[in-house]
Amino acid sequence: MALLSPAETQVGPSAVLSVPATLVRGGTSKCWIFRAEDLPADAGEAERLLIRTFGSPDLRQIDGVGGASSTTSKAIVVDGTDASGTVHYRFAQIGIEEAAVEWASNCGNCATALGLYAIHSGLVQASAEVTRVPILNTVTGLRLVCEIPTPDARVPLYGGRRLDGQHYPGVPVDVIFQKGSWSSYGQEYPTGSAIDEIELDGHRYPATLIDAGAPAALFDARSLGLTANEDAAELGSLVQLAPRLRAAAARKMNLPAGLSSVPKVGIVGAPPHGSTGVAARMISMSALHPAIGLTSAVAIAAASGAAGSVVSQRAIGNGGDPSLMIHLLKGTAAVALDALAPSEVSFKRSARVISEGTILVPRD
Amino acid sequence: MALLSPAETQVGPSAVLSVPATLVRGGTSKCWIFRAEDLPADAGEAERLLIRTFGSPDLRQIDGVGGASSTTSKAIVVDGTDASGTVHYRFAQIGIEEAAVEWASNCGNCATALGLYAIHSGLVQASAEVTRVPILNTVTGLRLVCEIPTPDARVPLYGGRRLDGQHYPGVPVDVIFQKGSWSSYGQEYPTGSAIDEIELDGHRYPATLIDAGAPAALFDARSLGLTANEDAAELGSLVQLAPRLRAAAARKMNLPAGLSSVPKVGIVGAPPHGSTGVAARMISMSALHPAIGLTSAVAIAAASGAAGSVVSQRAIGNGGDPSLMIHLLKGTAAVALDALAPSEVSFKRSARVISEGTILVPRD
Repeated sequence: MALLSPAETQVGPSAVLSVPATLVRGGTSKCWIFRAEDLPADAGEAERLLIRTFGSPDLRQIDGVGGASSTTSKAIVVDGTDASGTVHYRFAQIGIEEAAVEWASNCGNCATALGLYAIHSGLVQASAEVTRVPILNTVTGLRLVCEIPTPDARVPLYGGRRLDGQHYPGVPVDVIFQKGSWSSYGQEYPTGSAIDEIELDGHRYPATLIDAGAPAALFDARSLGLTANEDAAELGSLVQLAPRLRAAAARKMNLPAGLSSVPKVGIVGAPPHGSTGVAARMISMSALHPAIGLTSAVAIAAASGAAGSVVSQRAIGNGGDPSLMIHLLKGTAAVALDALAPSEVSFKRSARVISEGTILVPRD
Repeated sequence: MALLSPAETQVGPSAVLSVPATLVRGGTSKCWIFRAEDLPADAGEAERLLIRTFGSPDLRQIDGVGGASSTTSKAIVVDGTDASGTVHYRFAQIGIEEAAVEWASNCGNCATALGLYAIHSGLVQASAEVTRVPILNTVTGLRLVCEIPTPDARVPLYGGRRLDGQHYPGVPVDVIFQKGSWSSYGQEYPTGSAIDEIELDGHRYPATLIDAGAPAALFDARSLGLTANEDAAELGSLVQLAPRLRAAAARKMNLPAGLSSVPKVGIVGAPPHGSTGVAARMISMSALHPAIGLTSAVAIAAASGAAGSVVSQRAIGNGGDPSLMIHLLKGTAAVALDALAPSEVSFKRSARVISEGTILVPRD
């Protein structure tokens, strides 16, 4: 243990807020969940409070509840439920070394955590068998439903679902996207077709331009001389090309200008020999994604049900079983579909309430 | 956000314990503090519960409250106070990838956190001006006193002491070691002398063998052809020699056999040109310490008051000011002494109560 050098400064006294909060694991993230009414009404003040709560800016977040990594520096602010019973929330990725909060992204792990929290906190009443928790990220517009087994309408504190790569199990949470609400901008196929062509430098690249989970441009790997089974080293030129493919697709999809994160860009090809489903490689911003985001997986799964899409052209079926394996750079994602042409796409996840109490937050 | 592959196992239902706990920053660590009465009475069960609470074994401690680093995977178990008002506790370093707890070490940061917690929790009543909190680690025998300003006997939630390298300030906590209780094995100078010689391979190395804070063997840097101002690259041969110097010193100090962590071994020399105090380089286990442990700093400070010790021989005074600067590989430690021949050695630290509540712990 290191001693510190002697210099110290005196800072004047200050108010300390006591803020109720609950720490919930969702998937492979930890998320601190707050109620909007427990935070300052002013948005800027609330943001400053969240930053201080996590101990940022500090590489180690030593004076707060942050876990000093991107998957443990996350918060959800719950605004309440609307007349239809949908939980309204905002997701906050808290900066670590930066005193900043990113509100414009989605986090499937935290959405999973929120599903369990909603029942645990009484925000949503548990049903007799399975409780449905519809949630809406009011910043991004993402809607999904969490389904959690609640036998005898009891709130689950513990569950037996353990997924690959996790040491401890948790409460089963099925995360479900529905056709009626999975488009961010209103139209599932903004061009009206499940297959389009993107023109760039005189080449024509076949692509499915879909708005499901998130807007996505899914390119046929073959048209780029690839198979979508490549390793990272083999995809360097694709990563370089991706920003221009994204920009061209955004124009064709009539997306608002200036968004750098949508559409999601990826290539799709036939699965590895002997496997079913599809192979995919996703590029987020200007880097290869080792796996796939939840919302991009929805896009691929939704497109798998559309005749002529690059996904349905390449996918190998599994004898009528309406589930889709997406083979990725690292691992495989399993997506459950309600039908071969799905109106519901769902993911098996788990969550656990780790801790609940109050956080003391100085108003420096 | 990555999806997980589909394999999942079902694990049977299990009890979930609700365990009260408080998260306190002390110095540059975060420490979860528990009461012994809230943990299982059986020592093995309590240890398993602590491991599960932190989410270990897991590199990321994602299903628990651990922070996935050595300075954020620490706990204190408070046993209570004795008739003299001393708080009895045990310090637990929780393994991260290993399902293991190390009880035999000291942590000055967590001792600092405990001082503040004792007042905050009502374990010790706040006094009118400054509250003294004597604490005893019942595993290691380490005793020290935390002094915390409590004007009007109010419990401080916030304080203005910010030390170098810390972004946020905290409640001032002075950590004080006292001559009457700073020896682990009863005798401050086990050989009866402030200066000894350690014989090894025909060489004689002058050393001060002292038991203050922790048993320590402080070698004269010059006898090893060094100055104690060297950088890491220049100290390779010392690091190699240190285990045998430690073993020889342990025999001379009549310490119990089989301890690999004591005596602490270091070299002492004159401070950098123009500075006061001493230079020191400490070797913990078989690696160079970038700074110095609190207990080793006590040993150097105590020895600075003894005529003939290697510390008092090399130290440059500061005009009668009874404080000692220890110049280290990385930074400088400032130690306050009550007199040139100290009966009290103290350190300025800070602490803050971050969160309090309950942790839900499955009994897998």
